[in-house]
Amino acid sequence: MLNLKRSGLFVILGAMCLIPSSVFADESIKPVVVNTMWVLMAGVLVFLMQAGFALLETGMVRSKNAVNVMMKNYIDLCVGTLLFWLVGYGLMFGANPSGYYGTTLFGLSSAPDWDYTLIFFQIMFAATAATIVSGAMAERTNYIAYLIGTCGITAIIYPIFGSWAWNDGGWLKQMGFIDFAGSTVVHSVGGWCALAAIILLGPRLGRFSDKGETRSVPGHNLSFSPIGGFLLWFGWFGFNGGSTLAAGANIGHILLNTHMAGAAGAVGAILMSIVTRQPILLTSTINGSIAGLVAITAGCASMQVPYAILTGAIGGSMSVIGVMLLEKMRLDDVVGAVSVHGLCGAWGTLAAGLFLTGNMFNPQQIMVQLIGIGAAFAWVFVSAFIMYSLISAFFGLRVSALHEQRGLDITEHGEIGYPEFAQDAAYKNENLKDLSKL
Amino acid sequence: MLNLKRSGLFVILGAMCLIPSSVFADESIKPVVVNTMWVLMAGVLVFLMQAGFALLETGMVRSKNAVNVMMKNYIDLCVGTLLFWLVGYGLMFGANPSGYYGTTLFGLSSAPDWDYTLIFFQIMFAATAATIVSGAMAERTNYIAYLIGTCGITAIIYPIFGSWAWNDGGWLKQMGFIDFAGSTVVHSVGGWCALAAIILLGPRLGRFSDKGETRSVPGHNLSFSPIGGFLLWFGWFGFNGGSTLAAGANIGHILLNTHMAGAAGAVGAILMSIVTRQPILLTSTINGSIAGLVAITAGCASMQVPYAILTGAIGGSMSVIGVMLLEKMRLDDVVGAVSVHGLCGAWGTLAAGLFLTGNMFNPQQIMVQLIGIGAAFAWVFVSAFIMYSLISAFFGLRVSALHEQRGLDITEHGEIGYPEFAQDAAYKNENLKDLSKL
Amino acid sequence: MLNLKRSGLFVILGAMCLIPSSVFADESIKPVVVNTMWVLMAGVLVFLMQAGFALLETGMVRSKNAVNVMMKNYIDLCVGTLLFWLVGYGLMFGANPSGYYGTTLFGLSSAPDWDYTLIFFQIMFAATAATIVSGAMAERTNYIAYLIGTCGITAIIYPIFGSWAWNDGGWLKQMGFIDFAGSTVVHSVGGWCALAAIILLGPRLGRFSDKGETRSVPGHNLSFSPIGGFLLWFGWFGFNGGSTLAAGANIGHILLNTHMAGAAGAVGAILMSIVTRQPILLTSTINGSIAGLVAITAGCASMQVPYAILTGAIGGSMSVIGVMLLEKMRLDDVVGAVSVHGLCGAWGTLAAGLFLTGNMFNPQQIMVQLIGIGAAFAWVFVSAFIMYSLISAFFGLRVSALHEQRGLDITEHGEIGYPEFAQDAAYKNENLKDLSKL
Repeated sequence: MLNLKRSGLFVILGAMCLIPSSVFADESIKPVVVNTMWVLMAGVLVFLMQAGFALLETGMVRSKNAVNVMMKNYIDLCVGTLLFWLVGYGLMFGANPSGYYGTTLFGLSSAPDWDYTLIFFQIMFAATAATIVSGAMAERTNYIAYLIGTCGITAIIYPIFGSWAWNDGGWLKQMGFIDFAGSTVVHSVGGWCALAAIILLGPRLGRFSDKGETRSVPGHNLSFSPIGGFLLWFGWFGFNGGSTLAAGANIGHILLNTHMAGAAGAVGAILMSIVTRQPILLTSTINGSIAGLVAITAGCASMQVPYAILTGAIGGSMSVIGVMLLEKMRLDDVVGAVSVHGLCGAWGTLAAGLFLTGNMFNPQQIMVQLIGIGAAFAWVFVSAFIMYSLISAFFGLRVSALHEQRGLDITEHGEIGYPEFAQDAAYKNENLKDLSKL
Repeated sequence: MLNLKRSGLFVILGAMCLIPSSVFADESIKPVVVNTMWVLMAGVLVFLMQAGFALLETGMVRSKNAVNVMMKNYIDLCVGTLLFWLVGYGLMFGANPSGYYGTTLFGLSSAPDWDYTLIFFQIMFAATAATIVSGAMAERTNYIAYLIGTCGITAIIYPIFGSWAWNDGGWLKQMGFIDFAGSTVVHSVGGWCALAAIILLGPRLGRFSDKGETRSVPGHNLSFSPIGGFLLWFGWFGFNGGSTLAAGANIGHILLNTHMAGAAGAVGAILMSIVTRQPILLTSTINGSIAGLVAITAGCASMQVPYAILTGAIGGSMSVIGVMLLEKMRLDDVVGAVSVHGLCGAWGTLAAGLFLTGNMFNPQQIMVQLIGIGAAFAWVFVSAFIMYSLISAFFGLRVSALHEQRGLDITEHGEIGYPEFAQDAAYKNENLKDLSKL
Repeated sequence: MLNLKRSGLFVILGAMCLIPSSVFADESIKPVVVNTMWVLMAGVLVFLMQAGFALLETGMVRSKNAVNVMMKNYIDLCVGTLLFWLVGYGLMFGANPSGYYGTTLFGLSSAPDWDYTLIFFQIMFAATAATIVSGAMAERTNYIAYLIGTCGITAIIYPIFGSWAWNDGGWLKQMGFIDFAGSTVVHSVGGWCALAAIILLGPRLGRFSDKGETRSVPGHNLSFSPIGGFLLWFGWFGFNGGSTLAAGANIGHILLNTHMAGAAGAVGAILMSIVTRQPILLTSTINGSIAGLVAITAGCASMQVPYAILTGAIGGSMSVIGVMLLEKMRLDDVVGAVSVHGLCGAWGTLAAGLFLTGNMFNPQQIMVQLIGIGAAFAWVFVSAFIMYSLISAFFGLRVSALHEQRGLDITEHGEIGYPEFAQDAAYKNENLKDLSKL
C-alpha cells in the first residue's frame, strides 16, 4: 500500500514535471520565429533602399533623363530578384567545396521555412549591389546594355565574390575575413562595377572641356536627393541590423554604430569640403552620410561606438576626396557611386580590421582585410570590365550624341518625366509622336 | 528515517520541477506579445501604402489636379479610419449568425489587448480598399461626391463582403473560400467600386475623340509614380505577412512569394507590352509589379515559389491587357485601377485555388474560388453602382466642363500644387482670388 | 534492489525535470531580445520622421529656399545625433541627484547591450525636437545661426527639460507628471523654441502689409507636404509605440489610439475651418492630423479609444485656431509649428491628465499636468529666447533683405533646387558663379 502510495506520488511528480513542459510548449516562442521576424523586417527595410537610390540618383540628373533613371532602378530590382533566385543564391550560398563558388540551392522551391527567410534577405542585398551602378552610368547609357549588365552582376559577379566572403566554405571566410554586412561584398562590388563601366562609357558630353576644365552638371531636383538619402539611411538599419541573421540583444549596438557613422560621415564630408575650399553642397553632404554608412557596414558589429564615429567621419571625408580624384582622372560618375561605395567600402573593410574590439591593430587581421579588399577589386573590376566590353561590342554601351542631347527619356522610353514643365519645345507633348521615331 | 529522506527528496524533486516554471515565467515571452509586435509592424507597413497610392496616382494626373488627388488620398484615410472603427469593423468581424454581416464590436472601446491590435490592422486594410478608387476617378470627380462614396465603401460595401469571406461565420469562409490576404476582399472590391464609378462618370474631356481614337493624357510627374510603386510594394510585405495574424516561421515563405510575384509582374507586363507591340512604359511596368502583388495576395501562404512567380507574371501581363480592354470599351480609368486591382485580384483568387500546395487543380476548390470571385463582383459592382447613382442624383458626381478644364485644384480646393511652375497665366498666384470664386 | 530501482526512478524523474529546463533554455527567447527588437524598430520608424518633416516643410516654402530647408533637416539630424550622444543623453538620463539634470553617461561607449538600444531610441527623439524648429524659421534665417541654435537645443534645452520629466530622479516625474511619449517633452519643447525664434526673427518680407493685412505665401510643391504628413504619421507609430521601452500586449492599444487621434485631428481641422469660414486647405488638413498625433502622444497609453479620438479632434481644431492667433499677433510661422507642436503638445499633456483611465478628471493630476506644461514653457521659451538673442548678437539671426529676396539656396548654399524650372533669369544656371559671390 505504501508502495502504491509512492507510485501515486511518482505519477503526480511525473505529471508535475510534464505539465510545465507542455504549458511552455504553448506559451513560449521558438527562437526561429523571433529570428524570422527580425530578418524579414530587416529585409523589408533593405527593400526600401531601392526607392532611396532611385530618388537620390534621379534628383542628380537632368530632367530629360529622369524616367530613364527611375526605370533602371525599378527594373533592376525586378530582373535582379528573379535572376538571383534562379542562379545567384546558389552560386553564393550553395555547397561550396572549392571555396570559389556554390553548387546547390538554384531556384529554391521546397525548403525549410528558415531558408525562405534567408533568401528573401539576400535577394534584397543582391538588388542593392546591382542598383549602385545605375547612378554612375546615368545620362548616356544604352538601356538594354545597362539591363544586360545588371543581369551579369546579380547572377555572376556579385554572387561569386559573395561565395568567397560569406559562404561558410569560401576561401576568404576561412581566412577570417571580416565583412559583417558587406562594405566590400555589396558596396565595393557595386562601386568597382561602376568604375569599369564609366571608364568604358566615357564622360557625358560637355562634362570636361577640351581645356581640361570640369563643368558641373546640376541635377534637376535637389529635393529628391535628400529624401533618397533618408530612405537609404532608414534601410541601412535593416542592412546592418539584419546581418546578424538572428535576433539578439547585440543588435542595439549595431544600429547605434550604424547611425553614429552616418551622422559622422556627413560632418566629415562638410569638414573636408571646408579644408579643400570647396562649397558645402547638399549632394556632397548626403553622399558623406552614405559614405559613413558604407564604411561602418563591415565593422558595425565588432567596433566600439567612438571608432564607429571615426570610421564614418573618415569615410565621409574620403568620399569628397574620391569625387575630386575621379574628376581629375576625367572619369564621369554622375552621383559619386565609385567614391561612396567603392572607395569607402574598401576603407570600411580595412577599418573593421583596424578597430576590432579586443584585437585592435592586429597586423594579421589587417593583412587578411587587405587581401579581401584586393581580391574584390581584382575579381570585380576585371570581370565587369570584360563584361561591359562584350556588351559594348555586341549591343553598344553608349547612346548616340543626338540621343544624349535630347535625353534618354524620349529616345529610349518614348516618355518624358514632366511634360507640363519642360522648357524646350522639343519635349512638348504635341511633338512626342515624331520624336519617338528617332 | 528512510521515509523522511525520501520525502525530502520528493520535496527537492518537486521544487526542481517548479523552479524552472517560475524562472520561465519571468524569462519567456508570451506568444501574444510577439504576435502583437508582428501584426502591428505589418499594419504600420500597410499604413504607408496610403503614401504609395498618393504618389503613384498624383504622378499620373496633370498638375492642375495634383492637390485634389493628394487631398482625396489623405482624407480617405482619416474619414475611413473613423467610420471603419465605428461601423465597418463590427459589420465585418462582429458575431455573424446569418453569415452575411456582423452584429457586434461597433465603436470598439474596452476590449482585450489583442482586439486593439486586430482592429488596428484591419483599419489599414479598409483604408486601402477605399483609396483604390481615387485614382480611377481622378481629374473629373466632384470632391464631396467622392468623399461620400468613400464613406459608403469603408462603412458598408467593403465590410459586408469581408464578413462573407473573412468572418468565421461568413458563408464564403464556411465553403472553404481561400483569400488569404485579400486579392478579392480588398483589391477586387476596390477595383469593382472603381469600375462602377467610371462607368457613371464618363471619360475625361478629350480622352476619346469622336472618331473613336484614344488619346493618352500624360501624367505630370513620372518621378512620383515609381516611388509610389516602391512604397506600395514595401507596404505589401505587411499586407501579406501580417495576414497570418501571428508570428510563425512560415512568414518567410509568404514574404518571398510576395516579392517574387511583384518582380515577375513587372517582367510579365513588359513581355506583354512587347507581344502586343505597345511601348514599354514606366507606368505600365509599375502597374505590372502591383498587379503581380495583387495576384499573389490570395495565395501567398499556400503556394510554392515557382507558382507564385507564375501567378505574378500572369497578373502583370493581364494588367496590360485589362488596360487595353477598358480603353476599347471607352472607359477612362486614369491609373489603371480596375485592371490592376479588380481583374488581377480575381485572377489571383483563382490562382490560389489552382496552385494550392498539396491539392493542386482540385475542381471543387476552383469552383469555390469562382463562386467567391463572382459573389464579390455581383455584390460590389451592383451596390457601388447604386450608391454612385444616388450620389450622382443628389450631389452630382462630375464637375462642370469648365472646372475640369481649369483643374480641380483651383476649382474644388482654391489651392494649386506648384504656383511657381504653372505655365498658364490662369494659375498664377495673383489671380488666385478671382478664380476661387468660379 | 527495490531501493536501487527506486533510486533509478528518482534519477529518471529528476532528469525529466531537468530536460525540459535545458531544452527551454535553448528554445525560449529572453524578453530583452524581444524588447530590443521592438524599441529598435520603433526608433527606426522615428528616424524616418526626419524625411517627413523635410518633405512637409519643403513643400510649404518657395522653391528658392528648398535646398536650404532640406539642408537644415539633413544637418540637424547629423549634428544633433553626435551632440546628443556626447552631451544630451547624459544630461537627460544620467544619474540625477538634484532632480534638475543628469550627471553621467556622457559619450556612451562601453555599456550593457540594452543601453545602446535606449540611446539609439532617444537620439531619434532628440533629433525630432530639434527639427521642429526648422520649418517655423524657414525662408529668412542665417544658416550658421540656425545650426548653432540646433546645437543648443539638442545639447542643453531639450535634455534639461527631459531630465525633469523622464529621468527617474527628475522633479516632475517624481510629482507624477504624465507625458508618456513626449507631447510636452518633445513637441512643446520644439514648439516653444520655434516661438522664441520667430519673435526674434520677425516675419518674412511682405508677409504682413503695413495696413495690417496678412498675405499668404504659397508653398512651391503641395505634393511634397502630404507625403511628408504620411511619413510623419508612419514614424509616429514608433514614437508612441516604442515609448513603452518594452514589448507588451498593450502596444496595440497605444498604436490604435495614436492612429485614431491622427485621423480625428484632420477631421477636427476641417470642421474648424468650416466653422471659422476659412478654406479647407490641404496644408491645414495635414497639420490637423499632425496636431492630433502631437496631442495623443502624452496620453496614448492611458486613455480609452473614444477619448483618444476626442483628444485628437480637439488638437486638430486647435491647430487651426493657433495659426489664426499667431497671424493676428503678426508672428510668421511658415509651417505652423508653434501651433501644431507647441500649443497642441500642451493640450495633449492636459488631456492625458483629464482622460486618465480609472482616474478621470482628478484635480490633483490635472494640477500636476499644468505644472509640467508651465515648467516646459518657462524653461524652454526663456532659455531659447536668451540663446537666440545671443546668436543674433554674435552671428546675426536673419539674412539680409537682398538675400531673402534672392532666396537662401543661392545666397547661403550656392546651389538651387530646380535649375531647369526656375522662372527668374537670376536663378539660371549660367549665372550661378556670379551670384555665389553675393
